[in-house]
Amino acid sequence: MMLWALSLPSIMALRAPGGPRAQWRRRAPHMTFESSVFSKEAIQIAGTEEEIVRGGRDLFEKLPKAFADIKQIGVIGWGSQAPAQAQNLRESLADTDIVVKVGLRPESSSWASAESVGFTEESGTLGEMFATIRESDLVVLLISDAAQAKLYKEIFEAMKPGATLGLSHGFLLGHLSSIGEKFPEDINVIAVCPKGMGPSVRRLYEQGKEINGAGINSSFGVHQDVTGKATEIALGWGIALGSPFMFETTLTDEYKSDIYGERGILLGGVHGMVEALFRRYQAQGMSSEDAFRRSCESITGAIAPAISKFGVKALYEDLLDADQKKEFDRAYAAAYPASREILQEIYDEVASGNEIRSVIMHGDRLDDFPIGKIDGTYTWQVGEKVRADRKGDDAADFPMDGFTAGVYVAMMMAQIDVLRAAGHSYSEIVNESVIEAVDSLCPYMHYRGVAFMVDNCSRTARLGSRKWAPRFDYLLEQQAFTAVDQSDLDTDHLITAFLNNPVHDAIDVCRSLRPSVDISCEAPSSVKEKIIA
Amino acid sequence: MMLWALSLPSIMALRAPGGPRAQWRRRAPHMTFESSVFSKEAIQIAGTEEEIVRGGRDLFEKLPKAFADIKQIGVIGWGSQAPAQAQNLRESLADTDIVVKVGLRPESSSWASAESVGFTEESGTLGEMFATIRESDLVVLLISDAAQAKLYKEIFEAMKPGATLGLSHGFLLGHLSSIGEKFPEDINVIAVCPKGMGPSVRRLYEQGKEINGAGINSSFGVHQDVTGKATEIALGWGIALGSPFMFETTLTDEYKSDIYGERGILLGGVHGMVEALFRRYQAQGMSSEDAFRRSCESITGAIAPAISKFGVKALYEDLLDADQKKEFDRAYAAAYPASREILQEIYDEVASGNEIRSVIMHGDRLDDFPIGKIDGTYTWQVGEKVRADRKGDDAADFPMDGFTAGVYVAMMMAQIDVLRAAGHSYSEIVNESVIEAVDSLCPYMHYRGVAFMVDNCSRTARLGSRKWAPRFDYLLEQQAFTAVDQSDLDTDHLITAFLNNPVHDAIDVCRSLRPSVDISCEAPSSVKEKIIA
Repeated sequence: MMLWALSLPSIMALRAPGGPRAQWRRRAPHMTFESSVFSKEAIQIAGTEEEIVRGGRDLFEKLPKAFADIKQIGVIGWGSQAPAQAQNLRESLADTDIVVKVGLRPESSSWASAESVGFTEESGTLGEMFATIRESDLVVLLISDAAQAKLYKEIFEAMKPGATLGLSHGFLLGHLSSIGEKFPEDINVIAVCPKGMGPSVRRLYEQGKEINGAGINSSFGVHQDVTGKATEIALGWGIALGSPFMFETTLTDEYKSDIYGERGILLGGVHGMVEALFRRYQAQGMSSEDAFRRSCESITGAIAPAISKFGVKALYEDLLDADQKKEFDRAYAAAYPASREILQEIYDEVASGNEIRSVIMHGDRLDDFPIGKIDGTYTWQVGEKVRADRKGDDAADFPMDGFTAGVYVAMMMAQIDVLRAAGHSYSEIVNESVIEAVDSLCPYMHYRGVAFMVDNCSRTARLGSRKWAPRFDYLLEQQAFTAVDQSDLDTDHLITAFLNNPVHDAIDVCRSLRPSVDISCEAPSSVKEKIIA
Repeated sequence: MMLWALSLPSIMALRAPGGPRAQWRRRAPHMTFESSVFSKEAIQIAGTEEEIVRGGRDLFEKLPKAFADIKQIGVIGWGSQAPAQAQNLRESLADTDIVVKVGLRPESSSWASAESVGFTEESGTLGEMFATIRESDLVVLLISDAAQAKLYKEIFEAMKPGATLGLSHGFLLGHLSSIGEKFPEDINVIAVCPKGMGPSVRRLYEQGKEINGAGINSSFGVHQDVTGKATEIALGWGIALGSPFMFETTLTDEYKSDIYGERGILLGGVHGMVEALFRRYQAQGMSSEDAFRRSCESITGAIAPAISKFGVKALYEDLLDADQKKEFDRAYAAAYPASREILQEIYDEVASGNEIRSVIMHGDRLDDFPIGKIDGTYTWQVGEKVRADRKGDDAADFPMDGFTAGVYVAMMMAQIDVLRAAGHSYSEIVNESVIEAVDSLCPYMHYRGVAFMVDNCSRTARLGSRKWAPRFDYLLEQQAFTAVDQSDLDTDHLITAFLNNPVHDAIDVCRSLRPSVDISCEAPSSVKEKIIA
């Protein structure tokens, strides 16, 4: 059955310009920014030039200049990002007069949590949410997507003219676009989007005290600049968070790649892939425990760490033996087309606004249908047992399975190729598809399990994972696994394309831009029970 | 774990008016129609009054009056509905001067198929598609949804002013709405929507030669009436197709209930349910063959036929023994909330236009990603073997499984309750959720398998089934099957609501409106290889 071979040439080709979806496929406009405070640097990345700003603690002394007219930064919310960003900002600005104040609803259960790390009403660093917004010159809005969609009008009304609205995600722009509304015209609108979950943003910042430059990379974007200072504020914010480097994006590109990425290789794709592989290995005769080790534990304990340390291409070339390569090749060749098909569907759903509309509609149903947990099924019960039984022998606990690696890498490469075809920058692609996966999400999934991650991440990510994981699962089983069992599967074409993909250079460049820091799998106790992507 | 019990009161309650989704939830406007040709009849249906028109061969003599100014009916396309409708119309109008002409692209492979049943160029009953549209007074447009979306401009341009555009599905209206376009203002726009796939429309029409009134029910709707004759034309068309009775709807309600229904209990829901049950039964120790019999064969061979013959309530009260009832109760109580959750999501996705946009976007991707088949997986391979091994002993071949019945009926009732909450008429609800399921889709799935049905139905239905089946599967496993294994599952509340649901009266009324006709599972050879819903 030459099911896939028939469609390979068209799958491999980037689409021609024009056509109905060209609007979502166009190359992002060439971006350039100017800063009189920080130095920008041009880097060559897989044959393209991008401009970045490197971070580091030595730049903290420039923050007062970047934040020239800012007397107070209000950090609104206390989910995943807010505790990390509020604490990092406070410490980075410790030698200045700038106040970092957390804004919450007084009845919020987070109030005590914010107090426990030193934000208090007495010291003027903790206050009611809207009062804090009204007082602040930079409002870092880190409440959930759903809360943003619900409260944006009151938030906009509360903001001072000339103040700056800071987002860490383009979701609100996506929502406003889908309902035909806009940001107020008299404020700056910027985004700084760390490419990792909040606990990682905090943890690596702390490691940065010893290792200069350790931290989570961020993208930044300036959507509205009414004061002429929006770029400096964005760069200052990113540096104060501890980002080792920052690259420019648009809020539109950001929400597309972000919402898409968490539905793919970051979370939803891994979830579906593990379910499909776990069933396949059991059907082949493996015990449930071994099947779980060969699927989930292999990904989070062997494959992702190898990619983090050596890159995707080196994983294949240097870490797999001949038999593993053979398994990898067939798995990759079968899984790439299936993955690319569904990833393109996800991208189109996000880019068209459908996915954001779905998330908003889901919010309307929540009272009737609270989101259930996924962790009660057999797969994740076995996973819990397997994690408890880890012997401390990495090779036995986390086997490097060639087939699993082929499927995982195929999905990662398909995610990359869809983003590239849609015109995203390599910095964004590598951060959303590789670095965030292997350095932020996988370590947490390794520590607490995929189901825990899905059940405890942000609602937008959680809904996305629940929606798309089953689709990945079915498509892998129906298309990829039936194809891999065919004798005439053509592997050469896709493996060659994989090895020659320019993204490997881009991955190397991005890896070289920050020190190699192990992200501990052991989450701090404060986030053990609440990990929010 | 009282996961579901917590949300039951709100799930059971119909939503209050107003709120963000009220626009999709409002009661359909009270409809009434006038006919000077046919007699309408008021029926009491579950406490509501609806007006219907009964069909029958004795009414064929009134067709010339209903089709007063119509000299030619162009039936455009040759998929599932067109061969059935073209032949039924031709035979019903045999004693009149009205020409029934099939319009196709000359290069279409269907040309020969149309010729094989007597539509020929020589006799003036087969012609080029657009030429046929230009000549016809009634254009029955039965090309695929995707083709309608692609060609509607040319089709509208080709139509004579004052002619009537006839649809068998509201999809085109949904598509035009989603892109802000409208039908031309100088034509009638009507719909007659048989509640069964084309082959059933033909087969029951043929049975109607012996049993007066046998046929597939239709809904009808008048969207635009520029000549004042649109209602008579719609009723005449439905009667000429052999509908035993017709009930009124709007094109909007029709496409919502139709696209929703095929994603639910008609196709997608059954697909996902069978996968989840098949895995569960195997995990409990059953052989694959027995697990398939207890899941798929039980639904298509025992449960659906019983509902067809006796109704849903009688299946429970009269056909299950005490042990089966106990199994049913727990399965129902666990599966109803999960089913209702996802069915409400489907309804909202359809009503908001998201689902139609997805189908259109998918069409744009087809060149790169042709739709693969699902029939290669283990589940459906076992199914093929099980069907081949049928012994002719119904009780052994198609066991009545209480658990499977509980899940199937829960999904059917959830589908009904979502439609009722959204204001659809009982006629539409019963036809879309019960009659079409047990009398049209299930018999074909029983004959050729679920996978064959999915792989060979219309693209809109096929995409819908592939999209939602995995969601049903996961949600049943994650929520329903974990709940059913809890000791504190509250079954009384939901079983009481099930037994008291007014829809049972509505089902009885709808069943009384047509003769009981067995739809043979053995498809005619002409459709064996191409069954299109």
